[in-house]
Order: sequence, then structure tokens, then C-alpha cells
Amino acid sequence: MPLAQSIFDDVRAKTADVEGVSRQPYTAGEQAATDRIAAAARELDLAITDDPFGNLYVTLPGTDASAPGWIVGSHVDSVPRGGNYDGFAGVVAGVSAIAAFRHAGFRPRRSVTVMAIRAEELSSWYGGAHGGHIGSRAALGMLPPSELDTAIESVTGATLRQQMRSAGFDPDAVQLGRTYIEPSRYCGYLELHIEQGPVLEEKQIPVGIVTAIRGAARARSCRCLGAYTHSGAVPHEYRSDAVMATVELIHALDNEWTSVRESGGDLVFTVGKLYTDAAQHALTKVPGEASFGIDLRSQDQPTLERLAALTQELTTKIGRKRRVTFELSPFSFQKPAAMDSDFRARLHEGCGTLGISAMDIPSGAGHDAQDFAHMGFKSAMIFVRNANGSHNPHEAMDMSDFALGTRLLAWMVATQ
Amino acid sequence: MPLAQSIFDDVRAKTADVEGVSRQPYTAGEQAATDRIAAAARELDLAITDDPFGNLYVTLPGTDASAPGWIVGSHVDSVPRGGNYDGFAGVVAGVSAIAAFRHAGFRPRRSVTVMAIRAEELSSWYGGAHGGHIGSRAALGMLPPSELDTAIESVTGATLRQQMRSAGFDPDAVQLGRTYIEPSRYCGYLELHIEQGPVLEEKQIPVGIVTAIRGAARARSCRCLGAYTHSGAVPHEYRSDAVMATVELIHALDNEWTSVRESGGDLVFTVGKLYTDAAQHALTKVPGEASFGIDLRSQDQPTLERLAALTQELTTKIGRKRRVTFELSPFSFQKPAAMDSDFRARLHEGCGTLGISAMDIPSGAGHDAQDFAHMGFKSAMIFVRNANGSHNPHEAMDMSDFALGTRLLAWMVATQ
Repeated sequence: MPLAQSIFDDVRAKTADVEGVSRQPYTAGEQAATDRIAAAARELDLAITDDPFGNLYVTLPGTDASAPGWIVGSHVDSVPRGGNYDGFAGVVAGVSAIAAFRHAGFRPRRSVTVMAIRAEELSSWYGGAHGGHIGSRAALGMLPPSELDTAIESVTGATLRQQMRSAGFDPDAVQLGRTYIEPSRYCGYLELHIEQGPVLEEKQIPVGIVTAIRGAARARSCRCLGAYTHSGAVPHEYRSDAVMATVELIHALDNEWTSVRESGGDLVFTVGKLYTDAAQHALTKVPGEASFGIDLRSQDQPTLERLAALTQELTTKIGRKRRVTFELSPFSFQKPAAMDSDFRARLHEGCGTLGISAMDIPSGAGHDAQDFAHMGFKSAMIFVRNANGSHNPHEAMDMSDFALGTRLLAWMVATQ
Repeated sequence: MPLAQSIFDDVRAKTADVEGVSRQPYTAGEQAATDRIAAAARELDLAITDDPFGNLYVTLPGTDASAPGWIVGSHVDSVPRGGNYDGFAGVVAGVSAIAAFRHAGFRPRRSVTVMAIRAEELSSWYGGAHGGHIGSRAALGMLPPSELDTAIESVTGATLRQQMRSAGFDPDAVQLGRTYIEPSRYCGYLELHIEQGPVLEEKQIPVGIVTAIRGAARARSCRCLGAYTHSGAVPHEYRSDAVMATVELIHALDNEWTSVRESGGDLVFTVGKLYTDAAQHALTKVPGEASFGIDLRSQDQPTLERLAALTQELTTKIGRKRRVTFELSPFSFQKPAAMDSDFRARLHEGCGTLGISAMDIPSGAGHDAQDFAHMGFKSAMIFVRNANGSHNPHEAMDMSDFALGTRLLAWMVATQ
């Protein structure tokens, strides 16, 4: 796949950081990736358009102008010092599929639009309150304008609105709430992405067909407030120990996670941050405060709601028992997004036809595909095996696996 | 008690910090407290001596020069921004008892030496490896000379040896390993101290008779090492989650603590510090590292040894189950120090005679008394009720409770 390799190599070189690559939304790195896709599209003689938010659309028209077309999308930005493939591989797969059609002198019945999406990874660059996935949500008319001002660049302090404008785009267009991707004009959304977990690698299977994108219930900033006292002199019954109380809470939720899995449910539970106050804690002080975050994910919305409610119940019960107070930030919910069952069946059929070994797999991470699914697009995702996880410079996708995923994608848009 | 009040007031004024008092070992604050005791001793016409480490000894000779005398001791230094009474109250009590004897024209049979001890609180001012209780251990010939060099002042970086020398004392005398308090010359060691926990306050009892000073088993710097991965994309069976593993460990030890208490044993268990790595952790990352410290205290040495061994077993078991590695710093043990049972019985008798309401109570914190007990001195401690704990500016001892404790101390040295 000489075109894909050349695009990957060029963009890796242009966006290399101390290690890995950095393609910050609405800065030169993201622009370089977008520009390289536009250059490839010009060589392939594709129609090129954009929207006020800098998303790029390159289209191979189909033979049947009245047939709704395909959107093949993914994001061009990256996390700081991330890998070259997270997001970008999906865009390159779309362009490679079209290049193969051109090469074979083939035009599919439906038009194929590759969408190079901006700012999916905004969360890793911006603090404040925002949901990431800026490019897709803005293009779909579902980005609340307030997020342009509450998302704050972590280093410069600029708002997303300021940064988007200084990159030459028009954030104020968000205000209109209109969609730049009219659902009636498209038959569906397809996204290829490297797997961000180890499952395909461990099972030695090159391709995954995504069943659903897990939703999330998150309480970002939780605190347990007790009282600092002397670790030796204060007996159990007079303590308000924030660590013991928090440990009891997390352990209870961990046990609940086990029951959900054992009964065949889908859940992952993570406490990524847990810390006593460095300004006050000491080996020989009963800790008066512990901070933590809760990240629950599931393909099943009722499971998320039940676990969030259980967390609340447990904090009340444990708080009373252990003489502490829990302050949980309100759970923010991200709905699970089921992938279209017809599309999934077709992808399995394609794997059969093409002799590609594949398995069903949930997506634990969020993707632009979820926004399309939530807006009523029939959506599907193809995962490509990838060692070492993503969001780090050590991600490792074999180009032979990428070729299999791309072939499946091409088969899907060519035959539907 | 005009003398006690005047000493407390003078020294509080001389050593006031932004809040509370600061009497750092071998600096002006500690010296001011020592000087005020020396001044009181001169007014009372007492014999005044010292040792190479700056401990002050003021003595009222007894009527029977051949009878072994009393050491009434406590420390004059404080933690940073601590309270006026922690330590110092015991020294003032000794001087007040002697003043009362003088006032009544009474000379006890045994000589009474009030020892104003240096640097008990060294740990709160110095990092590095050392055991605190410098003044008492040096005077008793039990301070390992290496600690003079491994104890490092947290702000200036000076070693304890340098600091002690610059304060005009002779750290090199530690090398001799000789005792400046010959055990055969003394019948015992008595120390009055504010209670550092809430028990007397909660039970509304002014005086506690200490049963034992709890020993400790401590693992200061423990780490659990797992692997950072994506919180959504990595299922349970592929995680090496340092927080979940650490939580399981702490929760198991917390449960064990409950069983020890329920079976009538003595134990306190504290994890004062617990934290994921702020440079790497994130709400949506499975945490690859967690750090924590373990502080176990008990009046019973076998309990400490059993709990330390259990901790090791649990880390192996949980580590294997959860695919993580625990790195525990070796447990350092501080032996419990039982108070002399004859002295304890006498103190209860004194309370009966004087009409003082008192109760038995363990000391959870370390005290100079433990070093005397470990060196074979018959030792006892009197606790005085104190609200708000110690090691903070809010400690609150009523002078009327202090008077009761001091009366009991005077009765003890006068009648034994």
C-alpha cells in the first residue's frame, strides 16, 4: 500500500514530537495531517469541500447520483506525544480504498466521502468542561456553543473559540446549530480505527467488528472528607478516616464489577486518580481527605445508571458508618452507541468473502462514530489489531493488518 | 498555679509562630524553653546541670542522699506550629511540683530531678533516616552515632550533627555511648503529657494512667506497580490495575484490624498517604502505579509481627491475582514499652487518695518514657485531658486538669 505508507510517513515526519507525534486541534500539527489528505485527494482528482470548523470532505462520486452515499470518517488530530495511527489510520484507509478503486478503474454505485475530522482528542489538550469530539459534533449541529468558551487550552489558557478562530475557522457558525452532513444524503457512516486495547493482539485476530461503543458514567472529582488526627493516639471509634472509607467504597464497586461480569454483563470500572492531600498527609496522620475519580463504562445504559445509583447509596452508607462525608461531582453520562446490526452482519459477510479472520468486540473508548450513531446515522466500526494500546508513542499496527481492514472497508462501500 | 502559668505564658510568647509555637530542636525556640526552665530552677535554688547534648537537669535534693532519686522528664521542643503544651507541660509539671514542695517547706526523701529533654520531635523537622527522641536517647547512651549524619534538616539540609554543634553542644560525645543518667542512681522515670487523642475528653475524665506506649511496625514507602492502559478499551482480564490491587490490600488489613479489636486485642492501622502518580494518572487511564505508607501500632509486639507478616502474604497473593507487583519498604519495628505495673498501681492509689478521677489508657504516640523503659528504668506516664489533639495550634488543656495531673505527680514523688 504505497499511498498509505507515504501518507503515514509524511505526516509522522511533519508532526513528530520529542517522542511520538503531536497534532493538537486547531494548530499546525492537525493542519499538516489535513493538508496531506487534501493533497492525496487532489492527486486522485476527488471533490474537496470543507465546513466552518475545518473538517475536510473528499468525495469520489458514485455512478448513481440519487443513491445516498457513504461517509468514511475518522479524526486527524492526536493526543500529546501520541501514536501515528490513532484516528489518522481511519482517514488514510478511506483515501486508500478510493485510490484502489481509481487504480482498478472502478466507480462504486454510491458516492464515498472521506471525512477528515478535527479535534476528537480535545480532552487531552483542553481542561474545563467539554465533551471532546468537536469536529464531528460541530459538523452534525450537535455541539453546544457554550463548549467553545468552557474548553480552555491547558497551556495557553485560550478558549476553543479563540483557538479555532486564530486557526482561520468560524466557531460562531456553531450558533446556527445546522448540520453540514445531511442524514438523508447518506446511507451510513463507517470508521476504521486501531484497537486501543489488547484483545485482538491477545487473541491473534487481525480485525474486530465493533458491537457498540461503550457509554460512560463519570464522576470526575470526588472527595471524601474526614478529620486529620494522630495515627497512634486516636482509636478506631473516634476516627474519621478518609482513606479507609474511600477504600471501602472502591472495593465494594470492584466487587460489584465482578458480579456484573460473572452474570454476563458488560462493565469496566476505573479509579484512575486516587490521592491524599500532599500538603497535609503524613505517614503517621489519620488522613482527613482523599480525592478520586470514577469512570464506569458499559454497552448497556441501565447498567451505568444502576452503578451510578449504587455509588451514591454506598457513599451514604459508608459515610454514616465511618463518620466521613463524600462529595461526588454529579455523574455525567455518555450514552452507549450500538453499531448498526445490518452493517455488522454485512461486515462479517465481507470477512467471510475476503477470508479475513475477525471477531466481535466492544469499543471501550469513544469515537466520532458514536456522534453519528446518536444523530441517527447507521454506523459501523472496523478495529485493526494494535499492540501496546493507543494514546502513546508505542502503538504498533502492522501494515498487513491495516491492509485487511482497508480491504474490508472498501468491500463494504463497494458492495452495499 | 502562678509559676506554671507564668512559664507557659513566657515561653508561648517567646516561641510564637504564624500560628501556634515553633521550638525547633537545637535552635532558638527550643533554647528559649530550656532557658526559662533554668531561670525557674535558679529562683527555686535548685542544682542545675546539663549533658553534652543540651538536656537540662534541675534537682531538688532529697533528705536521704543514699535513696535513688526520681527523674521527672519530658521534652521542650515542639513540632512546627505546634501547641504550647505537647512535651513542655511535663517539664513545667515537674518544676511546679518542686515549687509546691519549696512553698510548703517540704523536702521529699528522694531527690527529684526534672529533665528538660531536647529534640523529641526531630522527625517533624528532619528528613532522612532517624528515630527522633534524640535528647533522651543520647543521654541514655542509646543513640546510634550514624543518626547524627543521616538526619537532615528539611529546609537547610544541615545534618543533625552540624546543627547540634552550631547550637553549642557536642554531638561527638554520642560516640562514647555512655549514659548520663546512671540507672542505679534512680528509682524511676515519670512523665506527664497531654493526651494526644480524644479519649479523656470524650469520657470526661481529667487524668489517664498510661498502660503502655504502643510499639509500631511501619513500612514507610510502598508502591504497587501495574501498567497504565486505556480505561475503556482494556477488559478486566488484561488489566494490571495498581489502585484496585492496593485497595484490596488495605481493605483486607482494615478487616483484620476489626477482628483484632473484636477479639480484645490492641491495634491501630493507618494509611496516612495514598496516591497515584500526578504526572501520569488520569480519570480515563487504568493506573499503573500507587504509592502508600503503612503504620501499624499496638501494645503487643506479637500482634505487630503478625500483621507485618500478613501484609507481606497479602501482597504476594493479591499481586499474583491482579498481575501487579508490590514493593514494600522493609517494616521498621518500634517495640511497645509497658509502663511499670507497681508505678501504675501507685498512681491509681494516688488518684484515690487525692480524689482524682482517672482511667487506664494506652499511649498511641511515642514518648521519651519509652526510651527510659527500654533502658530498664521503671517508668510511668500521666496523661492530662486535652481537646483537639496535639501537634497543632489548637490543642486545649485546662489548667485545672493540669493542676490535677501535677498534684498526682507530686504525690507520687513525695510518697514513694
